[in-house]
Amino acid sequence: MIDPHFALDARLTADTVGVTSLPLCEVRLMNDARYAWLVLVPRRTGLVEITDLATADQTRLWQEVNRATVALRAVAPCDKLNLGALGNIVRQLHIHLLARIEGDAAWPGPVWGHGKAERYGAQALDERVEALRDAFRCAAN
Amino acid sequence: MIDPHFALDARLTADTVGVTSLPLCEVRLMNDARYAWLVLVPRRTGLVEITDLATADQTRLWQEVNRATVALRAVAPCDKLNLGALGNIVRQLHIHLLARIEGDAAWPGPVWGHGKAERYGAQALDERVEALRDAFRCAAN
Repeated sequence: MIDPHFALDARLTADTVGVTSLPLCEVRLMNDARYAWLVLVPRRTGLVEITDLATADQTRLWQEVNRATVALRAVAPCDKLNLGALGNIVRQLHIHLLARIEGDAAWPGPVWGHGKAERYGAQALDERVEALRDAFRCAAN
Repeated sequence: MIDPHFALDARLTADTVGVTSLPLCEVRLMNDARYAWLVLVPRRTGLVEITDLATADQTRLWQEVNRATVALRAVAPCDKLNLGALGNIVRQLHIHLLARIEGDAAWPGPVWGHGKAERYGAQALDERVEALRDAFRCAAN
């Protein structure tokens, strides 16, 4: 299921770090320590909307979002999950999955466009990515 | 697929108007003339997260979101679709689907929590709901 022409959008590359590759999606961690925030990016070129995905890929996308949900919750227990596909700024199709905590920086509003990202420290980033990788290994697909 | 105990959340009832009933979801129009904005609510009790839905219902949910996408775009051509499942305020599981236009009231930010809803006039509301009902009839499932 590899598209050799796929390239991650430059802004996503700058704002996120790689966690794991699932059969369809790259899973990235938003480098913003205010929230536990994953971004899933289908490795397909030219996609903007979810409905641009072929039916089988859409099925796979939602399976992978479910798997990411299990992994994220294992690492970051939360009060509410937030799922979003916006793309008003970065058009390359990507799905946001967040573990929201009551009282977090944007609560109860959406995180997108709220304030400025606070980067993880190097050690905290490594630990979070490693914990997520472990959790993805344990999260059955 | 009817759950006799299902009741729409009071805030969703107040903020939206009914468009149509699909096999799983109630489809509602957000009564906010700033955006073409649908809300899909699975008729199941006690659901908060998408992963609370049984697998078959999840499949049905995404099919119905696709159908709603076709109907919404037919009525409200747009520059970008926005999909969201937040529920930080209203916990009853509901999916937002929006047709965003570059330069709309919240562009390029998210619509949730942005300013105050501007209610449709009575005639404009009737016309939009009727157009959506027609579009749902034409949007194959």
